[in-house]
Amino acid sequence: SKTYKITLLPGDGIGPEVIAESVKVLDAVAEKSGFALEYTTQNAGGAAIDAHNDPMPDSVVETCKASDAVLLGAVGGPKWDHLAGALRPESGLLKIRKELGAFANLRPVTVPASLAENSPLRPEAVSGLDLFTVRELTGGIYFGEPIGESGEGDDKKAWNTMVYSVGEIKRVARVAFEWARKRRNKVTSVDKANVLAVSRLWRDTVKELHEAEYSDVELDHMYIDNAAMQMVINPRQFDVILTGNVFGDILSDASATLGGSLGLLPSASVGGPVGLFEPVHGSAPDIAGQGKANPFAMILSVAMMLDTLDESAAAAAIRAGVDKVLDQGYRSGDLWREGNTLASTTELGDLVKNAA
Amino acid sequence: SKTYKITLLPGDGIGPEVIAESVKVLDAVAEKSGFALEYTTQNAGGAAIDAHNDPMPDSVVETCKASDAVLLGAVGGPKWDHLAGALRPESGLLKIRKELGAFANLRPVTVPASLAENSPLRPEAVSGLDLFTVRELTGGIYFGEPIGESGEGDDKKAWNTMVYSVGEIKRVARVAFEWARKRRNKVTSVDKANVLAVSRLWRDTVKELHEAEYSDVELDHMYIDNAAMQMVINPRQFDVILTGNVFGDILSDASATLGGSLGLLPSASVGGPVGLFEPVHGSAPDIAGQGKANPFAMILSVAMMLDTLDESAAAAAIRAGVDKVLDQGYRSGDLWREGNTLASTTELGDLVKNAA
Ligand SMILES: CC(C)[C@H](C(=O)O)[C@@H](O)C(=O)O
Ligand SMILES: CC(C)[C@H](C(=O)O)[C@@H](O)C(=O)O
Repeated sequence: SKTYKITLLPGDGIGPEVIAESVKVLDAVAEKSGFALEYTTQNAGGAAIDAHNDPMPDSVVETCKASDAVLLGAVGGPKWDHLAGALRPESGLLKIRKELGAFANLRPVTVPASLAENSPLRPEAVSGLDLFTVRELTGGIYFGEPIGESGEGDDKKAWNTMVYSVGEIKRVARVAFEWARKRRNKVTSVDKANVLAVSRLWRDTVKELHEAEYSDVELDHMYIDNAAMQMVINPRQFDVILTGNVFGDILSDASATLGGSLGLLPSASVGGPVGLFEPVHGSAPDIAGQGKANPFAMILSVAMMLDTLDESAAAAAIRAGVDKVLDQGYRSGDLWREGNTLASTTELGDLVKNAA
Repeated sequence: SKTYKITLLPGDGIGPEVIAESVKVLDAVAEKSGFALEYTTQNAGGAAIDAHNDPMPDSVVETCKASDAVLLGAVGGPKWDHLAGALRPESGLLKIRKELGAFANLRPVTVPASLAENSPLRPEAVSGLDLFTVRELTGGIYFGEPIGESGEGDDKKAWNTMVYSVGEIKRVARVAFEWARKRRNKVTSVDKANVLAVSRLWRDTVKELHEAEYSDVELDHMYIDNAAMQMVINPRQFDVILTGNVFGDILSDASATLGGSLGLLPSASVGGPVGLFEPVHGSAPDIAGQGKANPFAMILSVAMMLDTLDESAAAAAIRAGVDKVLDQGYRSGDLWREGNTLASTTELGDLVKNAA
């Protein structure tokens, strides 16, 4: 039977707690589906700074590259906030994304009718929402050269470069079009082509690829400022959103609010030989170690991992398990409402494990 | 008695209609307050492309510079969408902002209790909202050099530069701190300092200015992705938001959704010798020429102009007039709800004129 090598990067804050529950659930579905898992746990982010003075040591990168998939809990926290740029937990995250060649960050957001009451929007505007952001993750202004600083006093300046090549745009656009074909067949490409040269290349490239290979998919283009508005006014108009690194960072976080909690939102960073799977939420240092964290985002990230590894039955079992536990009314504090049963991180992990 | 020279740039779509109502109201309050106005009307945006093949001819810029203030309706529309970058209506807008040295774009958003039902958010989350974005408007990635394109095929790439100097950051930060002192004394500076060098300079500069000159004002720093979330989850936490050009474009548009219509939102672009005042909404070509446009955003932009010209009594009269007409239940289509009285653009202008 097949054995997958999984690198676990629990990281900081609630990371270790949600990773523990995910492993529990993953082991259970693996046994039922007849595959095995071999885990290696490594430090990342603040934990790696404490242990090795480096948020993503090369040895950790090598371990990740030698595995079939990487599960990341969360990185960062106030303890490391005083550190300079390259030494911060976040740099470790950027490094591992880049090193794995994970150029496409997939962020699905769904709001089942049962959770619509938790939304900051009116329930009727989000009930049944199902959108999917494909964010370019290893280019754009996050990595563009030159980056620099010069001058003194009031003339001192600093700069970053937002740059994309046709090749980078095409490969991530393909991911979006392919997902659209498996979903509701619509892509909204988001840019700022009325102002930025890099966005004009983005738009032209997406248009050409669409005409050449994906003309069966409906394609719209939207400016990022309008997209941020539409996300609040009428989010159900979206199926697949395709966008660059920083616009995707902002827009996917805006979309992440719609269900009322980040605690349910998984992500997958794919495109290279090894995928990276992490919840959308951060390390939540304020609730770390108290059994209050919602493990569902991490558990659903494991389901995305299993889809990527072609273990779709196991992925489906996990999703069904989470749905069942939610239907039964169990909730962590972030989602709890009158009438629900408050459950701890480990209780929720056990419930999903048994339901999956 | 004092006479102000006002350049009117009606522009495209509903621009001319809302400018006409604003002039009507402005004339009325001027008469009561004892000052006079001298208007010059010029083409801008698509109208200027049609007339002069240039979205902002130098002669128009000169007229604007020679006046005390500029009122802009709106620019753009599908008719000019096929044009290349520099020839588009939007370039005209960027040019006039830059030429006037209007480095601070002020975008207040208020949601009076009477309009909270129009919000896409739950009414209780936005009722009484009063936030104020100060967006840097003549720098950052909108104008940063180098801008370019090179290469062929898949290697073809295009880039823009996000650059700020300490001097640029300080001058716009001062505007934010000064506004905070007149309001609830809190500034939230929004950046992406965990990733971008330019944002780290932004954050350090804002911190230093705060310590040196504005330590009486409460100052927070927030990453742009989190700010986009907080804008949906809990917008009432904000008083003054200070941010760069593209982040401000996105975030202020997100904030503009909270009242349920762009039709009420004014803006002022100031900092240079002559201010530019325009509604947040666009040219709305789909309803142009039908008397359906909401003139309040433009009329309230006139109030911002009058504040800038130190005609505060006249500004207050306009705001009171708009409030009164809203209280009486008159609404354009964008805000109309059961129980309101639907009114046309000119009817609303007349009502405010009589109430102001
Ligand atoms: C922590 C930060 C560097 C990161 C990003 O900006 O990509 C985060 O916001 C995310 O979206 O995963
Ligand atoms: C039309 C466009 C160039 C403009 C901008 O991006 O500044 C608009 O979105 C705005 O916010 O005034």
